[in-house]
Amino acid sequence: MSNGVTVGFIGLGIMGAPMAHNVLKAGFPLVVFDLMEEAMAPLVAAGATAGSSPRSVAEAADVVLLCLPDSGDVQAALAGPNGVFEGVNPGQILVDMSSISPVVARELAAAAAARDVVLLDAPVSGGQAGAVAGTLSIMVGGDAQALEQVKPILQAMGKTIVHVGGPGAGQVAKVCNQIVIAVTIEAVAEALVLAARAGVDPALVREALLGGYAYSRVLEGHGERFLQHHFEPGFKTRLQVKDLNIALETGRSYGVPLLGTALVHQLYMSLMARGKGEADHAILVTLLEELAGQALDQARPQ
Amino acid sequence: MSNGVTVGFIGLGIMGAPMAHNVLKAGFPLVVFDLMEEAMAPLVAAGATAGSSPRSVAEAADVVLLCLPDSGDVQAALAGPNGVFEGVNPGQILVDMSSISPVVARELAAAAAARDVVLLDAPVSGGQAGAVAGTLSIMVGGDAQALEQVKPILQAMGKTIVHVGGPGAGQVAKVCNQIVIAVTIEAVAEALVLAARAGVDPALVREALLGGYAYSRVLEGHGERFLQHHFEPGFKTRLQVKDLNIALETGRSYGVPLLGTALVHQLYMSLMARGKGEADHAILVTLLEELAGQALDQARPQ
Amino acid sequence: MSNGVTVGFIGLGIMGAPMAHNVLKAGFPLVVFDLMEEAMAPLVAAGATAGSSPRSVAEAADVVLLCLPDSGDVQAALAGPNGVFEGVNPGQILVDMSSISPVVARELAAAAAARDVVLLDAPVSGGQAGAVAGTLSIMVGGDAQALEQVKPILQAMGKTIVHVGGPGAGQVAKVCNQIVIAVTIEAVAEALVLAARAGVDPALVREALLGGYAYSRVLEGHGERFLQHHFEPGFKTRLQVKDLNIALETGRSYGVPLLGTALVHQLYMSLMARGKGEADHAILVTLLEELAGQALDQARPQ
Amino acid sequence: MSNGVTVGFIGLGIMGAPMAHNVLKAGFPLVVFDLMEEAMAPLVAAGATAGSSPRSVAEAADVVLLCLPDSGDVQAALAGPNGVFEGVNPGQILVDMSSISPVVARELAAAAAARDVVLLDAPVSGGQAGAVAGTLSIMVGGDAQALEQVKPILQAMGKTIVHVGGPGAGQVAKVCNQIVIAVTIEAVAEALVLAARAGVDPALVREALLGGYAYSRVLEGHGERFLQHHFEPGFKTRLQVKDLNIALETGRSYGVPLLGTALVHQLYMSLMARGKGEADHAILVTLLEELAGQALDQARPQ
Repeated sequence: MSNGVTVGFIGLGIMGAPMAHNVLKAGFPLVVFDLMEEAMAPLVAAGATAGSSPRSVAEAADVVLLCLPDSGDVQAALAGPNGVFEGVNPGQILVDMSSISPVVARELAAAAAARDVVLLDAPVSGGQAGAVAGTLSIMVGGDAQALEQVKPILQAMGKTIVHVGGPGAGQVAKVCNQIVIAVTIEAVAEALVLAARAGVDPALVREALLGGYAYSRVLEGHGERFLQHHFEPGFKTRLQVKDLNIALETGRSYGVPLLGTALVHQLYMSLMARGKGEADHAILVTLLEELAGQALDQARPQ
Repeated sequence: MSNGVTVGFIGLGIMGAPMAHNVLKAGFPLVVFDLMEEAMAPLVAAGATAGSSPRSVAEAADVVLLCLPDSGDVQAALAGPNGVFEGVNPGQILVDMSSISPVVARELAAAAAARDVVLLDAPVSGGQAGAVAGTLSIMVGGDAQALEQVKPILQAMGKTIVHVGGPGAGQVAKVCNQIVIAVTIEAVAEALVLAARAGVDPALVREALLGGYAYSRVLEGHGERFLQHHFEPGFKTRLQVKDLNIALETGRSYGVPLLGTALVHQLYMSLMARGKGEADHAILVTLLEELAGQALDQARPQ
Repeated sequence: MSNGVTVGFIGLGIMGAPMAHNVLKAGFPLVVFDLMEEAMAPLVAAGATAGSSPRSVAEAADVVLLCLPDSGDVQAALAGPNGVFEGVNPGQILVDMSSISPVVARELAAAAAARDVVLLDAPVSGGQAGAVAGTLSIMVGGDAQALEQVKPILQAMGKTIVHVGGPGAGQVAKVCNQIVIAVTIEAVAEALVLAARAGVDPALVREALLGGYAYSRVLEGHGERFLQHHFEPGFKTRLQVKDLNIALETGRSYGVPLLGTALVHQLYMSLMARGKGEADHAILVTLLEELAGQALDQARPQ
Repeated sequence: MSNGVTVGFIGLGIMGAPMAHNVLKAGFPLVVFDLMEEAMAPLVAAGATAGSSPRSVAEAADVVLLCLPDSGDVQAALAGPNGVFEGVNPGQILVDMSSISPVVARELAAAAAARDVVLLDAPVSGGQAGAVAGTLSIMVGGDAQALEQVKPILQAMGKTIVHVGGPGAGQVAKVCNQIVIAVTIEAVAEALVLAARAGVDPALVREALLGGYAYSRVLEGHGERFLQHHFEPGFKTRLQVKDLNIALETGRSYGVPLLGTALVHQLYMSLMARGKGEADHAILVTLLEELAGQALDQARPQ
């Protein structure tokens, strides 16, 4: 694929905007659309064209990327009035980079196939920082050939691109990613709070654990945030909750009990109830500190 | 410390025997004791001396190491009739390398101090493989100077030695290590079972997750065991349960809720109930497969 | 209100059919509608009139009752094409007796009010047996005066009618009812499985507990089902799961952690995964028996 | 059994003192012992004789009752130096009315049998109020004939006496009682907090639920305490925690997962951590109110 390929990008939010910028910077002609006029302005100033609807983007572009908040938004942008489906031609490739329900992703892929277009699900991991730096991890579901065709575009945004399976598989992998991260966050937080309450410096305990089988990126990064009480996002709690909702919904759809996920999800409910939705999801540690009656920086001498 | 220092070693089980061998191989004169005659024989054949009781070991050695199954065993060996305390001289250093309750460890350290000896708690991580290879991770609590003095001995057995804090801190770090590992095992198992049930190859999902923030040694090692259903220990389930008992006991002692630990502990109860105590603790995945009605190697096509 | 009042009844399923029959038997002229022709036939044979759509029922009746499976069904029947809202006159009273999301119930009540009609939410408890016998427990949310007007109709179906609060309050009470029942079921099941595994006759333990502070209708009724392994519904597991989904959704909407509910919900997921959706929700005990490796009727002698 | 039978009573705490008084008032000659001199004084003033040790009580009495805080206390009083076992004669009957581990109760019963005496386990339910009023519920394990012989004594203290099984069965029943009550407390608390947060008067929701399948003594009594925030014991949180420890220990001993119990136990840990040990165990509701960010008496209008 040469950079003569025109890329459409629908959804220019916290993640979508920097992702679209990276596509543009990689030399692809870019047509954008967002319900908010002002979201399109910076990209237009940088050389993109503004479309008037998802449909117009589909008409103007060869490959269309989407990055929207939730299942309903993606359904509307693809299948709603003036949606992408109304403007596609057979053979076009659509790539949904939103994090949505795998079940919905599969339904939309089938609807796309009925129109002779391929819809890949390619949710990302790596947060806003990864979006800006172009180092996202992208988990892809759908037709392998279509993925090969769009890979150069994805490579403008991400460092790791893994083809996980058929339609919906990318969303399933994303769900699994969120489950593992969230429950590991709880595990590390609960351990460090115990250490502090038992009179042992949690920073030293983290050091000790980093060197062995307890090592994880979460122990490293989120563990540091716990110690510093550094809760500037990162990854917002309300988005963590959104992803855990999708995870639990997926568990329900396939009849899989997710005991760890359900527990951590309920703990995050409490943080949402107390207005912590905009804080980094590492803020879970404050709930555990509260339950234990002691903060990490107050390790009691023994 | 020169290798003229005589080391005593009490407890020659799965972990203690190879650890004692490594101390001997490092050139330290070694006096051993174990309630089972036959456990001492191989070490005696290799050049160690057999003591007749913990007390006799304390009398014959400069530094005494212990590696016993549980709190009660350590209490008996140290403070019981013909125990170590009866044979120590002021200034001696004792190192308990068992994994026991931090509360008990603190009590024993105080009892040792009352006799003018230092008791360090130095539990290990790394399993039988690490014990044999001399690559254990050792988390130490107690007097820093005493630790410095015995470091050469510990270095015969371990690769990583971290001084975590005062008496009992080593046991606290060990507890934290076990909490994080156990809950992360559950997180990864639940995610991969979901993937399989949703018709996505869990091996590919693991690949995708290894590259991002969900990375952990558990995802790497135990994740592989999940996929292969490889449950030869490793680390036995019944020992995992023993460590989680200590963790929950510690939570109780210090008033810290351990919601994730309590959940995973109960899941392991079920595996013990069905006779899986001798299997590697990765066997947790089979319980989650059972609950979901599907094994990992039966990812259903979607 | 005299029995000259014509009652409309939309939704003639397991619950709706016997409820509609009781309204008819109480002497109220009845107009019915159900998407399935054959569901209307028995009621027509008994003297009811068949409507052609929810709209036609609203046009023909003074008071319209609905009893449908889920939020979406109620939304469609009320606000969809040819729905009730299209056929109402100002001043009419609508009573939704389905168990749906309180949030949706509130939205629908507001939509009704905008059309000058009152929508009461009046979900029921008491199962199919209670529906047939006319002994349901009805929890009502909405305008008190409207409730007074329709009370004679409700009394044809239920024995207990409680006005719990404003719009949506009935659904909230229903959710609370389901939470308490489900978690108590788990509590009793777990206790009796422990008794059996500890070699004590669970029937005797239940007897002992019935006489004290542990008494509950669940211990009495579901406890007996546990002992007999009697799982003919009653109340089907898949409906229990549906109600717990609504409960957790409600918790999410209002930011309330529901740790007990979330746990039990996940256990029921496992039962659904193994095809137990049609069994009485007391079947939860079999999962706990499985986890403990022992059935209740196998109390091991001690 | 005539009232010529001399009864010994060891342990005159919150429960033991009023229980012993009732035995005395029923006309049985009474010999008492307590480690605290002042605990014996009121009973001596009322006509009892003070023993000098558990042994002396066993020598002076025909039937010996014990009511002590924990397993260790009962073991010491029975089997320790100058304990009951040193003073018994073959054929004597001992009745332990403490709430202790069923496993320990079984061991002690075997130790008693080896001395030709019968040890019944007869823990009670009904709190201090029940102890004072003589209306306790007594759950008995052990030999049926021995129970028959001591029934008149038990009837001085309790209203309900249920023979549940062999040695230890009484303790198992007590454990089951505590599991059911504690988890039901959590269920009711979580439901009422949800109601309040959803803007519905929890008092009305409780009313609605009292009339149906959600009815329980807990909904009635503890539910009222939740609404009034009335936390004067009742039954102290620290005793609830002690009983849940025994329950979880019992689960471990027999390999039974107790997922509901483990969850509620951890929630109570948090209350202990914040110094609520002396409050009625209904205080759990305050933790759930805190997690939801709203108290029950602040139902927000909708």
